[in-house]
Amino acid sequence: MSKTLFEKIAARELPAQIVYEDDRVIAFRDIKPVAPVHVLIVPKKPIPRISEAAPQDEALLSHLLSKAAEVAGTLGLNNSGYRLVINNGPDGGETVPHLHCHIIGGRHMGWPPG
Amino acid sequence: MSKTLFEKIAARELPAQIVYEDDRVIAFRDIKPVAPVHVLIVPKKPIPRISEAAPQDEALLSHLLSKAAEVAGTLGLNNSGYRLVINNGPDGGETVPHLHCHIIGGRHMGWPPG
Repeated sequence: MSKTLFEKIAARELPAQIVYEDDRVIAFRDIKPVAPVHVLIVPKKPIPRISEAAPQDEALLSHLLSKAAEVAGTLGLNNSGYRLVINNGPDGGETVPHLHCHIIGGRHMGWPPG
Repeated sequence: MSKTLFEKIAARELPAQIVYEDDRVIAFRDIKPVAPVHVLIVPKKPIPRISEAAPQDEALLSHLLSKAAEVAGTLGLNNSGYRLVINNGPDGGETVPHLHCHIIGGRHMGWPPG
């Protein structure tokens, strides 16, 4: 298996503006931001999408979600607010087959969400 | 503290089209659907929003997310795809101060997500 785009970012084989990293997740700026703050948070384990997460990935999923909230706070979004988005498969608009959560803020997010 | 809208749904004090329930989460149709499939999945514990989840809520967050994916599968969205959305605070478009995750599918979701 060749590395996913996000594995290459975690391995520093591709450049990115990294805003958070630990042993299990990495967060970096989206290269096509849709708002003043737009960060992706990604598990280092290359789970393709959330529908393919296994039962043993549960702790990793909670870590991803709680760190998403923590990173949003670090980026100054706790009072103004933000939206978390996970796209799964074609109708979801999934573009990279490596699970990732969008953290989007810095402007009011409209409804519907796409 | 008075009950939140979603606590009232879980307590059957308000009607809803429930699609999944266990001891920790409940999922039901959004009353203002933005797509052919639009379900909310909610922890029964009334955490106001993800930025206020506590470290001891980590297992609940992973349960919420993995059940969101499972419910999406049950609703027939695994192949076509779907989008998961969590709104936090004013800019996120949060409307009910009780943590919930939108599961949206049945049509192609556009970008940006709001």
